Amino acid sequence: MSHPERLALGVDLGGSKVLAGVVDSRGKMLSRDYSATLAHHGPAAVVRVLTEAMRRAIAGASIEISQIEAIGIAAAGISDPRTGILHSSPHLPKWKDVPLRDIIERELGVRTVLGNDANAAALGEFCFGAGRGARNLIFITLSTGIGGGIIIDGKLYAGASGAAGEVGHMTIDVNGPRCECGNTGCWEALASGTALAREARKSIREGATTAILEQAGGDIEQVTAQTVHAAALAGDAVARELIGRTAYYAGVGFANLINLFNPELVIVGGGLSNLGDMLLVPAIKVAGERAFQAAFKAARFVPAQLGDTSGVVGAAALALGGGSSPLEGGRTG
Amino acid sequence: MSHPERLALGVDLGGSKVLAGVVDSRGKMLSRDYSATLAHHGPAAVVRVLTEAMRRAIAGASIEISQIEAIGIAAAGISDPRTGILHSSPHLPKWKDVPLRDIIERELGVRTVLGNDANAAALGEFCFGAGRGARNLIFITLSTGIGGGIIIDGKLYAGASGAAGEVGHMTIDVNGPRCECGNTGCWEALASGTALAREARKSIREGATTAILEQAGGDIEQVTAQTVHAAALAGDAVARELIGRTAYYAGVGFANLINLFNPELVIVGGGLSNLGDMLLVPAIKVAGERAFQAAFKAARFVPAQLGDTSGVVGAAALALGGGSSPLEGGRTG
Repeated sequence: MSHPERLALGVDLGGSKVLAGVVDSRGKMLSRDYSATLAHHGPAAVVRVLTEAMRRAIAGASIEISQIEAIGIAAAGISDPRTGILHSSPHLPKWKDVPLRDIIERELGVRTVLGNDANAAALGEFCFGAGRGARNLIFITLSTGIGGGIIIDGKLYAGASGAAGEVGHMTIDVNGPRCECGNTGCWEALASGTALAREARKSIREGATTAILEQAGGDIEQVTAQTVHAAALAGDAVARELIGRTAYYAGVGFANLINLFNPELVIVGGGLSNLGDMLLVPAIKVAGERAFQAAFKAARFVPAQLGDTSGVVGAAALALGGGSSPLEGGRTG
Repeated sequence: MSHPERLALGVDLGGSKVLAGVVDSRGKMLSRDYSATLAHHGPAAVVRVLTEAMRRAIAGASIEISQIEAIGIAAAGISDPRTGILHSSPHLPKWKDVPLRDIIERELGVRTVLGNDANAAALGEFCFGAGRGARNLIFITLSTGIGGGIIIDGKLYAGASGAAGEVGHMTIDVNGPRCECGNTGCWEALASGTALAREARKSIREGATTAILEQAGGDIEQVTAQTVHAAALAGDAVARELIGRTAYYAGVGFANLINLFNPELVIVGGGLSNLGDMLLVPAIKVAGERAFQAAFKAARFVPAQLGDTSGVVGAAALALGGGSSPLEGGRTG
């Protein structure tokens, strides 16, 4: 049996918003607090946002801070769970080697762990969501970028320095477009929402006959994956072709991950995965055509279940279970 | 302390040759027996070759078969360690779903395990070679093809159905050449010895001024990675350019693996890795330019130590330790 009294404070530190919540060892959120990150104000301001959000989350759960066993912080960017340092983040422009774990431990007086946001989300889905009961799985979030997390043998695999699972930055087209990471032809540069919007703007600029621009209110800078999707749903051929191309690249990446990891489960989340039949179905078909059949057949594709709370509950699980599930009784397999 | 009396019979079943040997739990080979696979004679003949090789290896170690605790077979191709079935192999043309583990168990009366050859080699290097003491590593063999094996948390990672670690079949150039696996732009299709030879033949056919053909005795069909290397050593510019291109692709694949696995160690073996300064050094440089710095800096590149015996001792380790090291006393970390 689990101990419902084991409580953690989970925090998801994103570029635009912070979500904090008190989470029990079954993944139940006893409170949730959303606030703006204020990323452009720099680290000190963000730390203040974080600590205030955490205090409100504790108050919202009607508990004392002493009842919190540990704090887990899931942050976008490059961090090292061993040192607790957030080295850099694309969404936190002024951050450079900030010892975030130690700062929060000092501020709150509670043991704190720091992890990557996509890794935490993978752990959240594994412990409390679509991955319950699995042993080996890949979690992928198709969003403005592509992130991921790897569960191996029932544990989060963070790698030698906490940087494992950067699935969005495997090159699938060495001659492809430049990625924000500096590399070329990354999966993220070809199959993310940002890539879809970029290609849509390119088509519009090249004079394609499409309703995408109209969906974006006539402003090409407002073209997003969502406006392309809306146009596609309304029957726009160019939009459908663009989404089909994105799906193809998504499938190429899926096939790579299947050939490398031979997972039993591939959990797909993120805003782009909501394009469903138009994107995921053809992407999985492409993966089936490209991956080894023995490995492809062993993999089940399932949607993520926890939505935008996967990072918070995953951060809490990281705090309570250190990369394994905090649920007692163990898992079979 | 280890038990030197724990003995396994390791077998490496390749397309052209079979290597069998009695191996103790410290990885010491007490005997070794090489024979021709006779792949073109079909499964029954190969099974006969295997059993005869095993009996000779036992005799060569001056022991009784009853002293063998288990047999490990490392086979090229797609196999499932749970069922012991060798589904298919590029080098064993007439094989289809052969229950090799059960056949050998019946023939020899000794518990048998079946694994993938590159996975076994990874385990061999981890237990007894370049990977001793590491917890997380990638083993890569750059040869006529590209194979690999993954050690995670001190254990061979075989995936959901034993098919993990097919590093040679991650797509790095989606518009690249067709691979033997049916896919396009696989790492193996761009950075293997076969790829290097193919590009050399292409250059020759297109009229390039090069000494490669001369190195191959004037017969274009005899052009191999070795003849290209020989020409490059003699100062041939085309050969150097071809190897440089192969190194570039090798580095792209290294970067992908570093971004995905964040390993502490990358062990590189296989004939192509002997091109050393001409291939590995520039390849690692490319990886450093493309991978995340935090992950790249955490990874040490080292040459494989066991040569062509890694598969045999790895198969023996698989038989004795089931994916972990059979050495007692555990590892730190």
